[in-house]
Amino acid sequence: MASAPSASGEDSLIARYFRPIATDPGAFNLDDDAAALKPSGDDIVVTTDAIVEGVHFLPDDPPDTIARKALRVNLSDLAAKGAVPAGFVLTLALRNAEESWLKAFADGLGEDARQFGCPLLGGDTVSTPGPLMISITAFGRVPAGRMVHRSGAKPGDRVLVTGTIGDAALGLAVLRGGKIHAAANEVAARDLLISRYRVPQPRTALAEIVREFASAAMDVSDGLAGDLGKLCAVSGVSAAIDLDSIPLSDAARDLVSRDIVGIETLVAGGDDYEILCTVADDRTEAFSLAARRAGVALSSIGMVVAGNAGPKFLDKQGREIALKRLSYSHF
Amino acid sequence: MASAPSASGEDSLIARYFRPIATDPGAFNLDDDAAALKPSGDDIVVTTDAIVEGVHFLPDDPPDTIARKALRVNLSDLAAKGAVPAGFVLTLALRNAEESWLKAFADGLGEDARQFGCPLLGGDTVSTPGPLMISITAFGRVPAGRMVHRSGAKPGDRVLVTGTIGDAALGLAVLRGGKIHAAANEVAARDLLISRYRVPQPRTALAEIVREFASAAMDVSDGLAGDLGKLCAVSGVSAAIDLDSIPLSDAARDLVSRDIVGIETLVAGGDDYEILCTVADDRTEAFSLAARRAGVALSSIGMVVAGNAGPKFLDKQGREIALKRLSYSHF
Repeated sequence: MASAPSASGEDSLIARYFRPIATDPGAFNLDDDAAALKPSGDDIVVTTDAIVEGVHFLPDDPPDTIARKALRVNLSDLAAKGAVPAGFVLTLALRNAEESWLKAFADGLGEDARQFGCPLLGGDTVSTPGPLMISITAFGRVPAGRMVHRSGAKPGDRVLVTGTIGDAALGLAVLRGGKIHAAANEVAARDLLISRYRVPQPRTALAEIVREFASAAMDVSDGLAGDLGKLCAVSGVSAAIDLDSIPLSDAARDLVSRDIVGIETLVAGGDDYEILCTVADDRTEAFSLAARRAGVALSSIGMVVAGNAGPKFLDKQGREIALKRLSYSHF
Repeated sequence: MASAPSASGEDSLIARYFRPIATDPGAFNLDDDAAALKPSGDDIVVTTDAIVEGVHFLPDDPPDTIARKALRVNLSDLAAKGAVPAGFVLTLALRNAEESWLKAFADGLGEDARQFGCPLLGGDTVSTPGPLMISITAFGRVPAGRMVHRSGAKPGDRVLVTGTIGDAALGLAVLRGGKIHAAANEVAARDLLISRYRVPQPRTALAEIVREFASAAMDVSDGLAGDLGKLCAVSGVSAAIDLDSIPLSDAARDLVSRDIVGIETLVAGGDDYEILCTVADDRTEAFSLAARRAGVALSSIGMVVAGNAGPKFLDKQGREIALKRLSYSHF
């Protein structure tokens, strides 16, 4: 049902706002039941991620940031797989079709679609009595067989991560009030943390560089510790991570230094949408140089080691710190 | 978040049940963040359709039929576009991860994936405090540029539809009790109507034949009358439909003949998931023959005519019947 605009006024409204984002010829101006992706000889990388009101975003988050987050969590996956964005389809489950909300949502989505070169190809709008939900399936292209996997990490590889870790989890804590909200007492720090929660920065600029250099990669969505554990498990390796080298924003570092929050909370927090990857030790310098040229901050946080145990997290003195929680879990 | 199995027991459960359906090498055994579709020189047709508890299925529908419906509404779109199934990704929004429900859901999904040659490529599972929702994006292949559009209908073309119309709407009415439940007093008739609501029959066997013969096609999801109106509008034509030639099941015909339900209700009912298409008059015989060989029932229900007005629905005497409602609308 409702795979395309029907005769009803609300469906026309939806078509009116979303059609301008459907700039790819394969979207057929959203006048059809399906889109077409043209063959280019590349593999098409497919990823799907949904966000749910009250779980991945808050009911009073601005509609444009909800749209951006829905698209960016998928763009983040594509970047970590070494894929260049090609387009996306959108499923929107709404309680009602309110014009001002839809307009702001579509405007935010359209700006990001243009910025990241990822046009809307089609979608479905359904009504729900429950929370708002946005599910996006995004497509990217890589030369045949060149998608970057989770499974290629080898003992001796370096473990690297882009950007900073833990800001989004702190941003959510700020929005929820309480201890961290009170402690993050500078407006600029609060705003930075909140914006990191609401609007992740997909590392699209690094996609081709990751493809050239990384032995394994994934994006950090459920928490650095847990996600690294998954990468290690699939690769059949372990890792030793230097907690002190995990990159933190000034705002996060300030909260850690004042003992408001522990580093363990940040590495298990989730919603970072940074790229976690492993690179052969002798290629790390070239990788770092290429990342710097692309304008993406990169930190080496440890080494891949042989073994089947979960990754170890070490403090300044080289003592292992046991993490109570590795990642965010939905259930 | 949760784009892949995490350390939690429930996520492992999900992986355990869905991994056997992910038979395509491009699914990477669901161990990665993304899937890869190999280039074949064909266009990849992309369609996305979601179903929501309480809207598209009922809370006490069996989990295997919910899974089948979620996949089949997408397979129906692919068939109408002339595309051969290639795979799908799944977003599952659950209140909780109950093992018996998940097992039955995955079993039903797996059987259909095998039957229709459409393997699971990946997915995302999220928790929701609201209704269960399943969003599927499905992929099919057509030779480059050969996707069948809504927009090619020409005056003089015949209008044809597969299967029977209105059964699913009656099945929903039976499940809801009331007048139609009481009137459909034979168990076999009730069961047929309910199964047509719960488990649509995608006309996958007709995909390549539609591609060869149809000037325009779409699947009937929101109601025959409204969907034909959309096809005509995009094609810049009108149509004259003979209400008496609209194919009905015995159960539906019985209810109409006893004046329990009007034909208008059936043509506006929705959830049919039959193929509606237009074919040049002089190719209709060959099309019908090919459909018969493929084992798909096909009925000619009218003609495409010039004009911009909505399609006309004519009774036995050739008088126009005004329809109060053209299709199901979500809002």
